[in-house]
Amino acid sequence: MSGNTFGRSFCVTSFGESHGIAIGCVVDGCPPELELTEADLQPDLDRRKPGTSKYVTQRKEDDVVRILSGVFEGRTTGTPIALLIENKDQRSYDYEKIKQTFRPNHADYAYVQKYGVRDHRGGGRSSARETAVRVAAGGIAKKWLRQKFGIEVRGYVAQIGPLELALKDWSAVERNPFFCADPSRVPELEQFIDSLRSEGDSVGARVSVVASNMPVGLGEPVFDRLDAELAHALMGINAVKGVEIGDGMRVAGLRGTEHRDQMTPQGFLSNHSGGISGGISTGQDLVCSIAIKPTSSITTPGKSIDEEGKAVDMRTTGRHDPCVGIRAVPIAEAMVALVLMDHALRHRAQNADVVADTPRIPGSAA
Amino acid sequence: MSGNTFGRSFCVTSFGESHGIAIGCVVDGCPPELELTEADLQPDLDRRKPGTSKYVTQRKEDDVVRILSGVFEGRTTGTPIALLIENKDQRSYDYEKIKQTFRPNHADYAYVQKYGVRDHRGGGRSSARETAVRVAAGGIAKKWLRQKFGIEVRGYVAQIGPLELALKDWSAVERNPFFCADPSRVPELEQFIDSLRSEGDSVGARVSVVASNMPVGLGEPVFDRLDAELAHALMGINAVKGVEIGDGMRVAGLRGTEHRDQMTPQGFLSNHSGGISGGISTGQDLVCSIAIKPTSSITTPGKSIDEEGKAVDMRTTGRHDPCVGIRAVPIAEAMVALVLMDHALRHRAQNADVVADTPRIPGSAA
Amino acid sequence: MSGNTFGRSFCVTSFGESHGIAIGCVVDGCPPELELTEADLQPDLDRRKPGTSKYVTQRKEDDVVRILSGVFEGRTTGTPIALLIENKDQRSYDYEKIKQTFRPNHADYAYVQKYGVRDHRGGGRSSARETAVRVAAGGIAKKWLRQKFGIEVRGYVAQIGPLELALKDWSAVERNPFFCADPSRVPELEQFIDSLRSEGDSVGARVSVVASNMPVGLGEPVFDRLDAELAHALMGINAVKGVEIGDGMRVAGLRGTEHRDQMTPQGFLSNHSGGISGGISTGQDLVCSIAIKPTSSITTPGKSIDEEGKAVDMRTTGRHDPCVGIRAVPIAEAMVALVLMDHALRHRAQNADVVADTPRIPGSAA
Amino acid sequence: MSGNTFGRSFCVTSFGESHGIAIGCVVDGCPPELELTEADLQPDLDRRKPGTSKYVTQRKEDDVVRILSGVFEGRTTGTPIALLIENKDQRSYDYEKIKQTFRPNHADYAYVQKYGVRDHRGGGRSSARETAVRVAAGGIAKKWLRQKFGIEVRGYVAQIGPLELALKDWSAVERNPFFCADPSRVPELEQFIDSLRSEGDSVGARVSVVASNMPVGLGEPVFDRLDAELAHALMGINAVKGVEIGDGMRVAGLRGTEHRDQMTPQGFLSNHSGGISGGISTGQDLVCSIAIKPTSSITTPGKSIDEEGKAVDMRTTGRHDPCVGIRAVPIAEAMVALVLMDHALRHRAQNADVVADTPRIPGSAA
Repeated sequence: MSGNTFGRSFCVTSFGESHGIAIGCVVDGCPPELELTEADLQPDLDRRKPGTSKYVTQRKEDDVVRILSGVFEGRTTGTPIALLIENKDQRSYDYEKIKQTFRPNHADYAYVQKYGVRDHRGGGRSSARETAVRVAAGGIAKKWLRQKFGIEVRGYVAQIGPLELALKDWSAVERNPFFCADPSRVPELEQFIDSLRSEGDSVGARVSVVASNMPVGLGEPVFDRLDAELAHALMGINAVKGVEIGDGMRVAGLRGTEHRDQMTPQGFLSNHSGGISGGISTGQDLVCSIAIKPTSSITTPGKSIDEEGKAVDMRTTGRHDPCVGIRAVPIAEAMVALVLMDHALRHRAQNADVVADTPRIPGSAA
Repeated sequence: MSGNTFGRSFCVTSFGESHGIAIGCVVDGCPPELELTEADLQPDLDRRKPGTSKYVTQRKEDDVVRILSGVFEGRTTGTPIALLIENKDQRSYDYEKIKQTFRPNHADYAYVQKYGVRDHRGGGRSSARETAVRVAAGGIAKKWLRQKFGIEVRGYVAQIGPLELALKDWSAVERNPFFCADPSRVPELEQFIDSLRSEGDSVGARVSVVASNMPVGLGEPVFDRLDAELAHALMGINAVKGVEIGDGMRVAGLRGTEHRDQMTPQGFLSNHSGGISGGISTGQDLVCSIAIKPTSSITTPGKSIDEEGKAVDMRTTGRHDPCVGIRAVPIAEAMVALVLMDHALRHRAQNADVVADTPRIPGSAA
Repeated sequence: MSGNTFGRSFCVTSFGESHGIAIGCVVDGCPPELELTEADLQPDLDRRKPGTSKYVTQRKEDDVVRILSGVFEGRTTGTPIALLIENKDQRSYDYEKIKQTFRPNHADYAYVQKYGVRDHRGGGRSSARETAVRVAAGGIAKKWLRQKFGIEVRGYVAQIGPLELALKDWSAVERNPFFCADPSRVPELEQFIDSLRSEGDSVGARVSVVASNMPVGLGEPVFDRLDAELAHALMGINAVKGVEIGDGMRVAGLRGTEHRDQMTPQGFLSNHSGGISGGISTGQDLVCSIAIKPTSSITTPGKSIDEEGKAVDMRTTGRHDPCVGIRAVPIAEAMVALVLMDHALRHRAQNADVVADTPRIPGSAA
Repeated sequence: MSGNTFGRSFCVTSFGESHGIAIGCVVDGCPPELELTEADLQPDLDRRKPGTSKYVTQRKEDDVVRILSGVFEGRTTGTPIALLIENKDQRSYDYEKIKQTFRPNHADYAYVQKYGVRDHRGGGRSSARETAVRVAAGGIAKKWLRQKFGIEVRGYVAQIGPLELALKDWSAVERNPFFCADPSRVPELEQFIDSLRSEGDSVGARVSVVASNMPVGLGEPVFDRLDAELAHALMGINAVKGVEIGDGMRVAGLRGTEHRDQMTPQGFLSNHSGGISGGISTGQDLVCSIAIKPTSSITTPGKSIDEEGKAVDMRTTGRHDPCVGIRAVPIAEAMVALVLMDHALRHRAQNADVVADTPRIPGSAA
């Protein structure tokens, strides 16, 4: 299998190239009788789409999603839900000049070696544009998780380059173009991104996602642990180079007495583990983070090669984000939601009859 | 599917509990005509097994692997290879006292909530003992990768608690009980682990794995990117809380001009990306790291609950590692090897006929 | 997984309802550099589509397929190929009258029990209209199999009700509306179908498919034998109730001395086994057959129930085929092609390096 | 994937060769808290095992199954259940003489072409001995289906060569060596098999399986229809060449007025469809049949080739069944049970919340 399907019980099969006719996906396994219209999915697409502020790429994409199947009279029927996003902005002349060359740190070179051929227009299949369909599919999962369990999956930008950004206020996230949860930092970010753009450079970012109101018991014990599947989902987002659950890489420096999340009948005393123990959700908030590399599509020239293997100097023009990590927030939320929904369905396949004698203790987001 | 199978073309299905009759796995998809005996697999099992030094748990497990099928007259036949490791040390009296309670930060509580029942002896299925079978299966992949491509998959401990440990000499790794690649640091590590044990505490660690002589083109473009599958594999190791490819989480703080790996006809000028671009291997060294949390099986008492949900004070006795991360090196190597072999087979299913016109440039481990 | 994906290395994910906006599929795993346009797929769709003669349903469906992705400059790129067929004829008023009732021997009753809801328009997802996308996807497989191995996958109608129809002339199949390979029988068939329609009745059929120029070695030994996967594929076609390989059900009455296909250096002496031995192709012609039940959408009234479980008399009007088996020929060919292509790719994943010392003997279609 | 795993939610991964150390499987996905011991599985293994009467092969195999994991204190824990059957009778000298030759109609020739190598001892992986592990795994499914739904899965031999055998009395099946449900025919069968053996010949058979007390709603609509998965499972049994659901191949000759299963509030009026409509169970008895070819392991010499492709005369000696179909009854039951359990779990993953308004009507075994 060529890896364009995600999930086992709730399966998303993605297709489409950046500058082709359309991108889209088929969502298989959604339970019937969920109320669903395009209006449920469009808001997250709008959060991800380019051109919404001067701090992200100025490419214009409407990203209007249509539901082609699987919904009848406003409710899911249990059959596959096909989602389609037509590519309005297919002009590829921007890319003619890079047709014969490989952009450094892009998939171009590896694609040609792997397939012998590539669709050079805007990166084709390797373009982050493909993530729009994940956001759309994730919207279905988000809605189902909310209705079924009350789960909320929310993300924010926790770091842009050298600037670490605290989670102060969830409601602030949607009110600035940086998905920043600390409104006091927004002017500083505006200035930083402006200066980057004028320098012809880009910068990395860190995004965190939190799922609250988690049920206990999601995840399978060995290979398909909940954290392992989250890592699969999140590392599969374009430009992501690191994934953390809870304290993440910092645990390498911690002691057992610091890290262990002690339990009391009133709940957990801490959440260093990010809501997962032994690969299974504990009922605490699920907390995970990703690091997104700085895009190498920058105007500062760099060394590269062409299709014949000869040296070239490469300078990306066109309409690019100075910090691609910003728009990764809805994508990361979507991937987390897809994993949770898949595991919720898998869990009940095997364990629908289970009644645990031990009472569930409250989770703790601390 | 309950998640005990890993891989799509090269599939490992794991079974067994820590204190049951045996642990083992079935490896499906190995190409025929690979020379294989137990002697190919035992060395990595011996590297992982407990009781080899006073710095790791003193539990005695022989971890002797037997090949039950799939090999005829010393060569694989293309049929499933079953591997079996009998549990010699099944005494479970150590665990009787924790039968009614949940160890904090272990899978105990989540298992009971998920399944209604658990095998409390040594953690049952959630025990790190299960990873022995991954090491055995990984040994098959390592051998095939070496013979087919010359790939070497090697790991070392890059950090223990506050101590960062550089990669100075691969040959040193096998000559100290810490998998440390800098022999000058070994006395310091001995002292540190000794003091931890006397304090009744534990510590986290970071392990890095490098695969050299990589072919270009492994990995699938969207969900099953090579890095995404590595993240799945590595985050699925017990106690791992973070996974990094190349520069990992540090990319959040980098600029595009710093991070991009420029290409020349003579090769890549750097390897910040860890050998993967757009989810596909570039031919550079594959570099990845994991953070392993400090075990909460420590003698310093902690708060927990029992099966009725009542508060208890918990103090783990028994034979535990003060730093479980040390023994994770062969496990991480094995998981990387399983991913690479799976992707090598998947790649040729689709792309066996491809001939790329562009010459391959040399990789760079820099 | 809800079962809308077929194949493991060459995967088809189907979506769409009979009277929805569109039907379609995503084909994942096609090797790159295959020349492909819609014109390669349309002919088989035209063979399947209704309204082509007075002997099949008079419903008008254009069944025009569009390729949305995965093809660039006339060649496949190795990325997912999305195929879309818009539903032009969405009038559902014919179905308003059956909205509250269940047609006997249709999926209606089972759907409502399973999902709590159904799209009653034309059967929704259970309609044979969905098979158009399998025909389109199968067209890709047919082309690749022909180019790679010279395999030809061809079917014909071998029985309509009481009339058994011999394979006399492949070229005749496309020249009559019954896919009959014996042109002398066509007038008899015309008369028979005419009389059926006037009687308000329907009839079953048997379809045979032959794949010639088969390579030896396709198929996996145990669960995913080539015959087992063909059975999966063919029994999954609407209204199919039996699947046979080679001599099929008749083997129950045969002796070993009659059935065994003896081998000589010049080839096999017979092909009772239909080209598969031990689940693996032998290089002989692959031969399989299916039985398609008579549709219960007939004008002769029958007993049924409504959505409240009350008795009703049911008489299907609308535009139905008196023998749905006739149009099953291209569908069966497509499913056989999908299985063969999937197994060809799976085979080379594991066995690309195999060189058999034993010479291949010629197959025999006898 | 090399096809040694069956099922998606209830997964069986098989391993082992006929004359290797052991055969066995891993069963993943069994719900927790099912009471299970080896004594639940042994009876079906004893029904299948050779040497039980003079009418089947005289090879001695104890087929004693051991549960290695997944069961704790007599109950399943939700973790993988490994089953092991050691091969006691590993003498392979019988096979030395056929080492260099290919038995006609066996997998030998195809294996060598596919893998370049084969384990010639008793057919290795292609031996019907492997089906013992399916019988063992099926025993788990049978027990769960019985406890959860009251489903009984039972089979009988419906035809041996020219002799058709009616279903007269289920209780008779276990009281004769032919799994014959009509005790009056037993003497005739004894005589027939005796004469076959003395003639050095073999004969085919037909086996039917019935599952009663079926729930409505099992099966997925398109590719993974319940009948399609049954066909996959049953055609995957060694030597099976045809699979039928309900009336099977006979539907090709029927009319709609004859075949349709009319519904009334009191139940279905017939069961031509074998309990499946649109790929989904209707609640009627599930009825399916398979045809098993006559073994070509007979003492009457036949033409074949050796490993160098030269002509040889082949005469199988050794201990073979004159009618391998007889012992297929417990295998077919097991495969049906595996499919039903897999679909029961898949069904509740997606549809656990569904409440159908329409009352369920009684099934009909008629």
